[in-house]
Amino acid sequence: MSKFEEKCIKKETIFEGKIIKVERDTVILPDGKKAIREVVRHPGAVGIVALIDNMILMVRQYRYALAKETIEIPAGKIDQNEKPISCAIRELREETGYQGKMTFLGLFNTSPGFADEVIYLYLAHDLIWSPLATDEDEFLGVVKLPWNDAVEMAITGQIQDAKSSLGILLANRFLNSSQIFAK
Amino acid sequence: MSKFEEKCIKKETIFEGKIIKVERDTVILPDGKKAIREVVRHPGAVGIVALIDNMILMVRQYRYALAKETIEIPAGKIDQNEKPISCAIRELREETGYQGKMTFLGLFNTSPGFADEVIYLYLAHDLIWSPLATDEDEFLGVVKLPWNDAVEMAITGQIQDAKSSLGILLANRFLNSSQIFAK
Repeated sequence: MSKFEEKCIKKETIFEGKIIKVERDTVILPDGKKAIREVVRHPGAVGIVALIDNMILMVRQYRYALAKETIEIPAGKIDQNEKPISCAIRELREETGYQGKMTFLGLFNTSPGFADEVIYLYLAHDLIWSPLATDEDEFLGVVKLPWNDAVEMAITGQIQDAKSSLGILLANRFLNSSQIFAK
Repeated sequence: MSKFEEKCIKKETIFEGKIIKVERDTVILPDGKKAIREVVRHPGAVGIVALIDNMILMVRQYRYALAKETIEIPAGKIDQNEKPISCAIRELREETGYQGKMTFLGLFNTSPGFADEVIYLYLAHDLIWSPLATDEDEFLGVVKLPWNDAVEMAITGQIQDAKSSLGILLANRFLNSSQIFAK
């Protein structure tokens, strides 16, 4: 058991939405005092670094929470009872029209201070055209970027989306150490 | 203006907490239909890659949202009217006891699908001992890791915290291309 553990003594559900659930819990701290913890519960998500012809497929979309358009790797939240790998295959088809072989790159917490969201990152390669309809409340455009440019943008901090930067850097390392693509 | 823009027609504040604010907004989509957007408003945060004697200073703490102990780079949320750089200096002193020169590595969105949180990442170097008291509801321990091990762990996906992995990878690139440390 962690010596820093915080024990919940009162759970209060503030909001149950379509995507997130918000809780306001009272906890006992290691020194015996009480504190409040605000927690966002999220079903988890996937992000996919998809490569075709030495280009990466990125998605341009409006992010309401940020009040602006972003360019990110294809991504989406995991449906109930869906496996992360199935979600990655589905999201890539929905958002870009492509299906491919998936290599797992890692699992990450996005905002451990207030949310339980985890994101599973994948590399998708050997892509074939196999579209699925996008969600009806989702509007987006696909952008192709030269892979080397994307890596340079990620490593110099020019990609403002954490999962996209991290996914690109991990995929780059994997590709440099594997035989997936002929050099 | 973005052709994907979503216009808010109704704002509903669900929760105003100590750290987060939760909204449930009704928006008009590009095709004229309505949709609901659940948004977590967050004041923003900083994360610091702090190096001393070829070691990185990491923080071990209990993350209530994840119900487990994690090892992350020192980090914390930005206080009202606080500049990100001032927050980085304060958080590093509070969590590790050290103060140093700060180099900005980049600004990232952590969860653009449901939150407006941004995180500013810094590299801290030339550290001197200059402690500040930690927050009274914060319990943590400092862990030193050899820098090369941390880089290897980040690049192979063994660090499960997105900001920590990304910060380490960006700092590594910066150090390899700068004159801060003699080789």
